[in-house]
Amino acid sequence: MSRTRPRHRRDFRWFCEVNTQWKDVDIYGHVNNAVHYTWFDTAVNGWLVGRGLLDPVRGEAVGLVVHTSCEYFDEVVFPDLVTCGLCASRMGTTSVTYEISLFRNDANQSFAHGTFVHAYVDRVTRRPVPLSGDFRNAVEQILS
Amino acid sequence: MSRTRPRHRRDFRWFCEVNTQWKDVDIYGHVNNAVHYTWFDTAVNGWLVGRGLLDPVRGEAVGLVVHTSCEYFDEVVFPDLVTCGLCASRMGTTSVTYEISLFRNDANQSFAHGTFVHAYVDRVTRRPVPLSGDFRNAVEQILS
Amino acid sequence: MSRTRPRHRRDFRWFCEVNTQWKDVDIYGHVNNAVHYTWFDTAVNGWLVGRGLLDPVRGEAVGLVVHTSCEYFDEVVFPDLVTCGLCASRMGTTSVTYEISLFRNDANQSFAHGTFVHAYVDRVTRRPVPLSGDFRNAVEQILS
Amino acid sequence: MSRTRPRHRRDFRWFCEVNTQWKDVDIYGHVNNAVHYTWFDTAVNGWLVGRGLLDPVRGEAVGLVVHTSCEYFDEVVFPDLVTCGLCASRMGTTSVTYEISLFRNDANQSFAHGTFVHAYVDRVTRRPVPLSGDFRNAVEQILS
Repeated sequence: MSRTRPRHRRDFRWFCEVNTQWKDVDIYGHVNNAVHYTWFDTAVNGWLVGRGLLDPVRGEAVGLVVHTSCEYFDEVVFPDLVTCGLCASRMGTTSVTYEISLFRNDANQSFAHGTFVHAYVDRVTRRPVPLSGDFRNAVEQILS
Repeated sequence: MSRTRPRHRRDFRWFCEVNTQWKDVDIYGHVNNAVHYTWFDTAVNGWLVGRGLLDPVRGEAVGLVVHTSCEYFDEVVFPDLVTCGLCASRMGTTSVTYEISLFRNDANQSFAHGTFVHAYVDRVTRRPVPLSGDFRNAVEQILS
Repeated sequence: MSRTRPRHRRDFRWFCEVNTQWKDVDIYGHVNNAVHYTWFDTAVNGWLVGRGLLDPVRGEAVGLVVHTSCEYFDEVVFPDLVTCGLCASRMGTTSVTYEISLFRNDANQSFAHGTFVHAYVDRVTRRPVPLSGDFRNAVEQILS
Repeated sequence: MSRTRPRHRRDFRWFCEVNTQWKDVDIYGHVNNAVHYTWFDTAVNGWLVGRGLLDPVRGEAVGLVVHTSCEYFDEVVFPDLVTCGLCASRMGTTSVTYEISLFRNDANQSFAHGTFVHAYVDRVTRRPVPLSGDFRNAVEQILS
């Protein structure tokens, strides 16, 4: 299916922390697999908002998610603290592929690894929009 | 990245309905990408519980999710009704790959398509457990 | 704390169904207490959208939630089907208090009962806006 | 409906931080009202786990939620950081009423205030269980 392996923190250029929540844990006592995607979303959009590259309310171009995936190497529980490491693995004319690894507490090896593809479109027409120069420069700084 | 295309309802053998919820919709006015994974989880586990193949509280073997992915072809909004079509695309000794397509209201073509890999393990030791005969028979009925 | 008791289906004028999801269930094996509020939100906004009283994208007035509460009488599990019964218990100049009871599968007595207060405001200025005549007429039809 | 007012940080004895997530924001551009309850749950259970008062997997007694409520004074958005202030306002023989105020970034006045009543029961029989001496001592330290 895939040969992705756990990654190390040193493979990433940008990080953010997210806390686990009580309700993230399912009947098996670990964080449910869908929660990881809310973290990927938070990492990518948090980076974009922090860099001034996304104004979700007024911006003309918005990033629509066209593909996501995740591999799960180990479990995580409440109240663990999760660090998301973010990089970009591919930049096209109108899209960016981000990769996000998740690290549990002080671990250096990730417990999960995701990909997240954003296609940039006009907010109203939903037609593809080329990435701006500022945007390309920012993505280049986290290209792996 | 992928050549997956929208699927038709006729490609699936088992279906369940899930309703969209007000809070599933994000700032862009459509259902957020992470929600699709909660539907995949609901479809797979709903099928398992309905077939008597999973007792999440007392069962000795549980399915841990080791890989998931989704491609998004179109948007869905509140209060759309979503139908999940389920099939199995691969059955190994201790794991099953499910595929789930999502259909909006009366549409015959899916707006998203996902894969979902369950590895069966002992609830306590988390060691792999071979699928039982009953389990294999049930999965064969939805193999595509 | 409160003298609210389980209600009957006959106490309500409008109903909608919501399905439980796998991830709604927490480590105790029942639906987590916060999920009930996503159902209340879905019931109130589903009624509003269905009556043509709310256009969440373009409407000038939007309902902001200013108070919510829930009493929990019994547990609900996956894959139960939940029916939400909706009524309005108070209508002010710019606000409506809705009450929502939740019924498990075929039960006639609710397993939870909630209140949900919407204050109507201008989307941009967030200043209170009086309910329109059409809106008041619709609410009157579900007043208990 | 209620005369609760925004609280100050000095009214609380224990705090924890939770991050907002991209998907917490709904179509109105602010965190959805149901999310606040996941924070209340995280605060109460985080305090219990941190104090060694709750073992959600093996503990004989578990806290079932019987009543919750929230008043919303102001909006919060992504990527705000939220601080939860926790206190206990009532301790009965088998139940505790917690109060939780939510503070946005550096604000000293809360944007929302909640109540959360836990009834302690035997995990298996779901019959009420008196709070232990250790438990009562811990709650007394956060009684307001």
